[in-house]
Amino acid sequence: MENKKRGILERLNAGEVVVGDGGYVLQLERRGYVKAGHWTPEAAVEHPEAVRQLHREFLRAGANVLQTFTFYCSEDKLEISGNVTNITGAQINEAACDLAREVANEGDTLVAGAVSQTPCYLNSQNETEVKAIFKKQMDDFLKKDIDFFIAEFFRYVEEAAWAVEVLKTSGKPVGATLCISPEGDMSGVPPGECAVRLVKAGADIVGVNCHLDPLTCIRTVKLMKEGLEKAGLKAHLMIQPFGFHTPECNLGGYVDLPEYPFALEPRVVTRWDVHKYAREAYNAGIRYIGGCCGFEAYHIRAISEELAAERGFLPPASEKHGLWGAGLQMHTKPWVRARARREYWENLLPASGRPTCPSMAKPDGE
Amino acid sequence: MENKKRGILERLNAGEVVVGDGGYVLQLERRGYVKAGHWTPEAAVEHPEAVRQLHREFLRAGANVLQTFTFYCSEDKLEISGNVTNITGAQINEAACDLAREVANEGDTLVAGAVSQTPCYLNSQNETEVKAIFKKQMDDFLKKDIDFFIAEFFRYVEEAAWAVEVLKTSGKPVGATLCISPEGDMSGVPPGECAVRLVKAGADIVGVNCHLDPLTCIRTVKLMKEGLEKAGLKAHLMIQPFGFHTPECNLGGYVDLPEYPFALEPRVVTRWDVHKYAREAYNAGIRYIGGCCGFEAYHIRAISEELAAERGFLPPASEKHGLWGAGLQMHTKPWVRARARREYWENLLPASGRPTCPSMAKPDGE
Amino acid sequence: MENKKRGILERLNAGEVVVGDGGYVLQLERRGYVKAGHWTPEAAVEHPEAVRQLHREFLRAGANVLQTFTFYCSEDKLEISGNVTNITGAQINEAACDLAREVANEGDTLVAGAVSQTPCYLNSQNETEVKAIFKKQMDDFLKKDIDFFIAEFFRYVEEAAWAVEVLKTSGKPVGATLCISPEGDMSGVPPGECAVRLVKAGADIVGVNCHLDPLTCIRTVKLMKEGLEKAGLKAHLMIQPFGFHTPECNLGGYVDLPEYPFALEPRVVTRWDVHKYAREAYNAGIRYIGGCCGFEAYHIRAISEELAAERGFLPPASEKHGLWGAGLQMHTKPWVRARARREYWENLLPASGRPTCPSMAKPDGE
Amino acid sequence: MENKKRGILERLNAGEVVVGDGGYVLQLERRGYVKAGHWTPEAAVEHPEAVRQLHREFLRAGANVLQTFTFYCSEDKLEISGNVTNITGAQINEAACDLAREVANEGDTLVAGAVSQTPCYLNSQNETEVKAIFKKQMDDFLKKDIDFFIAEFFRYVEEAAWAVEVLKTSGKPVGATLCISPEGDMSGVPPGECAVRLVKAGADIVGVNCHLDPLTCIRTVKLMKEGLEKAGLKAHLMIQPFGFHTPECNLGGYVDLPEYPFALEPRVVTRWDVHKYAREAYNAGIRYIGGCCGFEAYHIRAISEELAAERGFLPPASEKHGLWGAGLQMHTKPWVRARARREYWENLLPASGRPTCPSMAKPDGE
Repeated sequence: MENKKRGILERLNAGEVVVGDGGYVLQLERRGYVKAGHWTPEAAVEHPEAVRQLHREFLRAGANVLQTFTFYCSEDKLEISGNVTNITGAQINEAACDLAREVANEGDTLVAGAVSQTPCYLNSQNETEVKAIFKKQMDDFLKKDIDFFIAEFFRYVEEAAWAVEVLKTSGKPVGATLCISPEGDMSGVPPGECAVRLVKAGADIVGVNCHLDPLTCIRTVKLMKEGLEKAGLKAHLMIQPFGFHTPECNLGGYVDLPEYPFALEPRVVTRWDVHKYAREAYNAGIRYIGGCCGFEAYHIRAISEELAAERGFLPPASEKHGLWGAGLQMHTKPWVRARARREYWENLLPASGRPTCPSMAKPDGE
Repeated sequence: MENKKRGILERLNAGEVVVGDGGYVLQLERRGYVKAGHWTPEAAVEHPEAVRQLHREFLRAGANVLQTFTFYCSEDKLEISGNVTNITGAQINEAACDLAREVANEGDTLVAGAVSQTPCYLNSQNETEVKAIFKKQMDDFLKKDIDFFIAEFFRYVEEAAWAVEVLKTSGKPVGATLCISPEGDMSGVPPGECAVRLVKAGADIVGVNCHLDPLTCIRTVKLMKEGLEKAGLKAHLMIQPFGFHTPECNLGGYVDLPEYPFALEPRVVTRWDVHKYAREAYNAGIRYIGGCCGFEAYHIRAISEELAAERGFLPPASEKHGLWGAGLQMHTKPWVRARARREYWENLLPASGRPTCPSMAKPDGE
Repeated sequence: MENKKRGILERLNAGEVVVGDGGYVLQLERRGYVKAGHWTPEAAVEHPEAVRQLHREFLRAGANVLQTFTFYCSEDKLEISGNVTNITGAQINEAACDLAREVANEGDTLVAGAVSQTPCYLNSQNETEVKAIFKKQMDDFLKKDIDFFIAEFFRYVEEAAWAVEVLKTSGKPVGATLCISPEGDMSGVPPGECAVRLVKAGADIVGVNCHLDPLTCIRTVKLMKEGLEKAGLKAHLMIQPFGFHTPECNLGGYVDLPEYPFALEPRVVTRWDVHKYAREAYNAGIRYIGGCCGFEAYHIRAISEELAAERGFLPPASEKHGLWGAGLQMHTKPWVRARARREYWENLLPASGRPTCPSMAKPDGE
Repeated sequence: MENKKRGILERLNAGEVVVGDGGYVLQLERRGYVKAGHWTPEAAVEHPEAVRQLHREFLRAGANVLQTFTFYCSEDKLEISGNVTNITGAQINEAACDLAREVANEGDTLVAGAVSQTPCYLNSQNETEVKAIFKKQMDDFLKKDIDFFIAEFFRYVEEAAWAVEVLKTSGKPVGATLCISPEGDMSGVPPGECAVRLVKAGADIVGVNCHLDPLTCIRTVKLMKEGLEKAGLKAHLMIQPFGFHTPECNLGGYVDLPEYPFALEPRVVTRWDVHKYAREAYNAGIRYIGGCCGFEAYHIRAISEELAAERGFLPPASEKHGLWGAGLQMHTKPWVRARARREYWENLLPASGRPTCPSMAKPDGE
């Protein structure tokens, strides 16, 4: 059945909106299956039911793509992390592919095999070694039924370009996202130039993920777009931002926030923040729109609802969601019923309930 | 196997800490299975895998009790809600019992059949009618394997006492929690007197749940305790508070917050807030300590970790959690490694990242 | 000429609004003439031009009363303070009377001789000794031309009542204000009972001053009013609150704020806060309405402008103030012109410009 | 006697710190003598005692320079403002010179004749007309005893340069300050180039005043300094910033804040903010350090106290100020005594007491 699905490029070339999935590691940390600080995806083997359920939530929220739960799943990272000693990277990668595929087949959804930055790059910057790691992961994925690849969460465009070069050898489409700010990657390469290098390396889709809040990520992707236009290059744009407000963050992103990773709660975006984000991303010409850490199923549903007219349908989970708060119309208290309207939620400035806390922190490491 | 488990009163009489579970409806709303405004539990029939997974997360986090996912599951409420027309309350109640039992049997965990306030009480205040509704729900539960009952989320002690009187006829232990503030129930009955009336009605365990933040709920339970002591009565104390900061709220609780229910995110408690809460609840003499809306698995794990010495063990999910941030010791950035200690997280004042938002709202309806 | 002025009771008995003056010591500290921590009024002798100027600002803002600048000017306080060794209390008291009288004669304004709490009371609680101190101050005042007396800034109603008893022997009207919260004085005497005791001691006007923000002070005066009504007593009501937002403070008042006294700036009330305060005070039946520490001339002018219709005139300083921001109508920027209206300022929620600071502090000493 | 005073350049050339005065119009608005929106200085004629007193406060706080109270005192501005019809600009200018001189002679303080931007420049940009206006003002000043000139509060460097060119014809030293952000003047000329143009026009001292908070203004002056160094030019640096926190403001400065001008209170800097500012300004090589709107006498005293070691003396008003809160050592409450130390005030994060207000606003006009 999955063979009949239209591919990622087929959809994007047709101008369709592709809704991405949300974040896995942070959410599974909260559910008790991922260890913060390590952030490795052994749950795909240890607790497949937990990963399957989270995939399913994203699918119900309207995701057109499920990424394999293979974050940080290179052998060098697993070794350094030391979190699991009895499970190999290949086992995790293969299990993760099966889980994503199983759930994707419950809807019109594709599976993307995901690779991310390696410790090896930071330690050696040796192209041959780093590429070998990506090759090994790719080979794991190619044993399974993968629709396309995503190279994500790279701080250095150089490493990301190497990943793209490897993944392109598969013959499958490749997306590439950097976790960078509008100021550029950690080497100071500006977003426009980053995009150019990724496309030249073979990426079909480029953009950013994680590290900074949705509106900041849109600014970065816009700079990528401008860079591509100046260079006369074409590529699809994608975005999977961090689901927390990070107005203080620059180059280093959320890691420098004093609240990272165990007290980020007051910063988490609301579904209404996501409506605004989805609309602005769409207006910026981005067509692959999803989320990263902090994006839960209801955030992905908000993307799907905001872009329902453009996509032509609502996702399954909207059966359990009154649009713009409509479900409150039946509330017994009149002042709660008065909240069942778009203007209310669009204009609400939510309070933190924490009067002894600041509204902005001083980032560390700056 | 479940027959060998020690019962709830056996544990509490022995002075043990009983860790409760967290909130279901709000979390399943976010996951796409419950409709806000309605808050009915048809997911137990429609999507059992989602309910099962959430039960399992709480169990892994250390919960000694799983409540059946039967909130608002009286026939009159289901009818008014109009959210499901093809599923009966009995079907939901029975399915929910099976789900809770299935997961509870994966650990040393009990199942509590849960009933809550009814529209009937508000409309008619007719004791016979209201009691008939509770009787019907109880009979559904008794077809299944339930360890004890909890009557929860009552704004009026009168209705709660009626529920207790009905549930006591089962011969099983009964806990009763009100969703009230330190100012008392909606009729103005102060917490101390509420507790006395519940115990006189037959409750073995009394306390509060939902509506107000953890530290406020502790204040209410303390007033209950004082009331019982003055009356020369004895009962175990329980608490399952709202997982959001609500410093502005009084009688009406969270419903009056402008952010309810779709923009509460900035208020959600951190795991470190929960450590403090668990310790204060314990110090107040409360031994059944859990959470309600907003309490996710990692919050319940925080209760289990704070009280690990008292209980003598850590929960399964602590395998994926370095105590007090210990998992950050391996981080590559020194300023992140510096966060791997208790003092850091205990003293952190988390920022909201929302400088244009206030820190407190003006509650509606006051 | 001053002999022709109508007295304070004549005015209040006629139902007129009496606008009080603002705060002296805090403002003169900022101007460089009073030492924080000591707060003694030697400037009346050392720098009369500074005191005269501040009196004149209040007069221009519409004040019907100028208090003599004699705060803490009992010999025992001056001695403990050790701030001035070459000036006697009598010298200060007499100089202060002359300054107030000189400026009062520039308008339809009365002079109130002011006495405040003594260290002697805290140390000895000896009625004879304490009364002797008040007698000495009163005698200083009676050498000069004083219209009436105010006993202000008392934390204990007992001491205030002693002061009133002494001052009544002068035959002049006496007002008495306590610096207490709605919870009562430092001995726990509730506001209603405080008012009764002051009136029974002979006070013609009773109320509160300093320590807590305007709206909180109104609550306290309302409790005083209720106490008097229950006791079948009659007195005029006065209020001279602290000019800073103090939502966290209880019994101890502003002294317990971590920002006291050198970082209170972010809390200072705006002129629009004062409009609201003046209206609420008026609606509560209070007719002597002024301010204490933090109230500058423009705050007093705001009282005069809010109650211009009730008084029948605007104060001299309104020549330099467009009502409700009208002076902005001539601004070159359209978005600034748009601020020239009442709704704008009434609804504005002013930002602190301090995103790394909290909005509420944890008071010390609680 | 004033002839013996050392001139402004003599002092700056010797490497001395010159402490400037604070803001006049905003403070006199609060005292009831200046009309907001108009901001014209007719009080020099109408209420000389009020202007004299404010001059004296700055002198006591340690100011080495008093600016004449002649803001916006060009005939074209007075006419447009329409605030005073019976007083000429010449009358105000001359009266203001006398007042500044009278007070300056009470200490080792100089008088600077101050001119500012004209409506004429915005309307016509006609160099001849604009220069004629400056010439007329200068001639008023030259009838009196002025030590040097300051051209201040210019948004366009072109107009400021014209003013400098005119004022240089007097043969007296000239300082020039722009009210610009680090992004440059309203024509987009960057600060470095602005400084070069001012020095080439003849300015001996260049810098910024008003519009943005102290630390932002330091950034702008640093850019000016870099520009001068690159151009191989030399000039003394001066700074007189806005006394309010303005983190949101860019080009337009405070005017764009929704709180301007009647609700800025929560943003006002503390004396401890000023200590930090004075030290950073000094470290940046700035030697003429004062304040503008929002800087009251106690802020100027804080500059003098922070730089007391560099200057070799404390100002007169420090007789009424315990350094770093020392005056609290005698307080009766131990927790207040604990505040009598530098670390306390340096690290305090002052609360706004306004939990329903945001910490940052959205500037208008952007």
